[in-house]
Amino acid sequence: MNVPKIYLDYAAATPLDPRALEAMTPYFLDTFYNPSSPYSPALQVRRDYEEAKDTIAHAFGARGNEVVMTAGATESINLAFTSAGDGHVVTSEIEHHAVLAAADQHDRTLVGVSQHGRVDTARLAKALRPETQLISIALANNEIGTLQPLREIVEIAKLERRRRLAAGEKRPLYVHTDASQGLGLIDIHVSRLGVDMMTLNAGKVYGPKQVGLLWAASHVVLNPVVVGGGQERGLRSGTENVAGTIGFMVALTRAEKRQRQEAERLAAIRDEMRQALEDRFPAMIVSGNPKYQLPNFLHVSFPGIDAERVLFALESQGVLVATGSACAANKGTRSHVLTAIGLAPEVADGSLRISLGRDSNQELCQEAVSIIGDVIASEYDRVGGAR
Amino acid sequence: MNVPKIYLDYAAATPLDPRALEAMTPYFLDTFYNPSSPYSPALQVRRDYEEAKDTIAHAFGARGNEVVMTAGATESINLAFTSAGDGHVVTSEIEHHAVLAAADQHDRTLVGVSQHGRVDTARLAKALRPETQLISIALANNEIGTLQPLREIVEIAKLERRRRLAAGEKRPLYVHTDASQGLGLIDIHVSRLGVDMMTLNAGKVYGPKQVGLLWAASHVVLNPVVVGGGQERGLRSGTENVAGTIGFMVALTRAEKRQRQEAERLAAIRDEMRQALEDRFPAMIVSGNPKYQLPNFLHVSFPGIDAERVLFALESQGVLVATGSACAANKGTRSHVLTAIGLAPEVADGSLRISLGRDSNQELCQEAVSIIGDVIASEYDRVGGAR
Repeated sequence: MNVPKIYLDYAAATPLDPRALEAMTPYFLDTFYNPSSPYSPALQVRRDYEEAKDTIAHAFGARGNEVVMTAGATESINLAFTSAGDGHVVTSEIEHHAVLAAADQHDRTLVGVSQHGRVDTARLAKALRPETQLISIALANNEIGTLQPLREIVEIAKLERRRRLAAGEKRPLYVHTDASQGLGLIDIHVSRLGVDMMTLNAGKVYGPKQVGLLWAASHVVLNPVVVGGGQERGLRSGTENVAGTIGFMVALTRAEKRQRQEAERLAAIRDEMRQALEDRFPAMIVSGNPKYQLPNFLHVSFPGIDAERVLFALESQGVLVATGSACAANKGTRSHVLTAIGLAPEVADGSLRISLGRDSNQELCQEAVSIIGDVIASEYDRVGGAR
Repeated sequence: MNVPKIYLDYAAATPLDPRALEAMTPYFLDTFYNPSSPYSPALQVRRDYEEAKDTIAHAFGARGNEVVMTAGATESINLAFTSAGDGHVVTSEIEHHAVLAAADQHDRTLVGVSQHGRVDTARLAKALRPETQLISIALANNEIGTLQPLREIVEIAKLERRRRLAAGEKRPLYVHTDASQGLGLIDIHVSRLGVDMMTLNAGKVYGPKQVGLLWAASHVVLNPVVVGGGQERGLRSGTENVAGTIGFMVALTRAEKRQRQEAERLAAIRDEMRQALEDRFPAMIVSGNPKYQLPNFLHVSFPGIDAERVLFALESQGVLVATGSACAANKGTRSHVLTAIGLAPEVADGSLRISLGRDSNQELCQEAVSIIGDVIASEYDRVGGAR
């Protein structure tokens, strides 16, 4: 492609921060030692690794020894679900496939969401049973960008724990959140969130792909998904990903440092894009939550339009957006998220997910909106529908 | 450390091939797209990924669609063991901790080995039961370097399969090998090995760490260890490690290309080192197999000597060797491998594992032997033992 690219799919993948790669390179080429080897250059690598874990953990108010490094959010979620033991699990209808697949291995209840994608906390409270051991709700939805009422959910869990204590019931109840989407843009401090476990993914925050972590408070009992040499306190065996962890540390700390200003910056651009599209297409439907929304997410639907045709037309003009989440999009099935928020099929099929990131700026986004608008307009002309 | 380093612990970790890093870099920084995204730059990434898998698979006589990419050998082994289902497992006493830990989750029999570390195939044949579903034997041992009689083991499995067929028994019997150790130095062509499954680790062959694969013949039934978005034919979910797979491809193909000559080169240097040490220390015990041995491995024991003291003295003179496998060494327990081959505790505790690699050459290794010899001699002087 010779067309200059305007990348608006940061929710699917982020480029690696060049400073992260720079920090990783010596661990690839020079201090490549196995951190379990006993000589001092390897012990230094071990220290660097543990310090990187500490720095990562401090970024969200935790300690390095509460963190298990993994090969990404999916593995972290699988590990988090081991805490459910033989218990019942409560999650939502709009979770990532990794959560839904992990939940399917347990007796589980999927709670519905509002048309704005917020989990119905009253229904979540009712879904709890004495045998419920895990509640797993993503901090921000990865298709429409809705932020979830995690504090409320944590309070519901606390009430249930108190009831169990009073009733002499021994089963624990944990709250896990996947906070990967929106990492670097929203507050993920674990004591403010109040959760027991949190999944993060380096690949969503300008860190290396296939690097993630599960933070678990010390009272949470996990079982390893991968057994072996006993690394990560026996919870995740295999030679440690030193370079990847160093890269995650650099990317995360840089992203966290500019979190507030970056969130404000992107929200302003996003709002301007939405306004411009709304002005041109009054029939456009904006999904997600007007109030509780990822600052970089804009999910729009053009009823009667085929989003896949739009996507390819945009691509030919250098604009890259998504029609749904990358995983779901690949399967040619309609998004379970859009179904859950009640979008009619002809609306869902005309949906674009626009997600901004580090290289997004006002000028590029105005250009993108103009290109998107022209493509949508010509599609409406083609199908003869009302805009 | 200002001392020039002579690294002789390639079995624990290898540096990343700079050409592998060069090939990975564009996938970190530029074509960082999610391979599941639908636009053409992402489809190109998907093609690059699948082609890299094909190239990797061709290097050992297989097809890319028989390969599951993982986060390393440990995860691959865990995945291979899902093929055992509810069946019985046979492995050896000297396997890597990952195999032993995975086997512990099943009804299992550990077969003993000879003093040279070869699996006793007669005992292995006797260990098979009608309910045995998996035999897992590493191609080369990671502490002493013994190559295993895999062809014989495959023949034993074939006989048992024939018996089951005749008896109308339906249970399958699979042979898995972890061929990570010695990758790039020994033949790993799967049709010549005759196995049903093979684990490989990029981090042992100058590829990136936390990248590995499980090859499984198409008749093998696996269950995912990590569930989610359904990547890798549903066997291993999570966004694909494109950069890591590209790096593995470059490192593996480069290593395979020079496999024979590199094996000969290192074996010659290794033999010279052994001879020089034997000449100086007649009481030295060489472990591993005189005939079936990894070309880059030299495992030597100096009875009565404290190998940990030796290791630190060597380190201060810039020579890095191992006292046992990196994983086991870190735990302050005696190696299960050295116990299994019948080394007395005072012999085992005086053991060094020397493993050569790409930057090893005759001059450096002669220097290393001289340094090792002086350190051992001064230790013998200290303890007053016979050399």
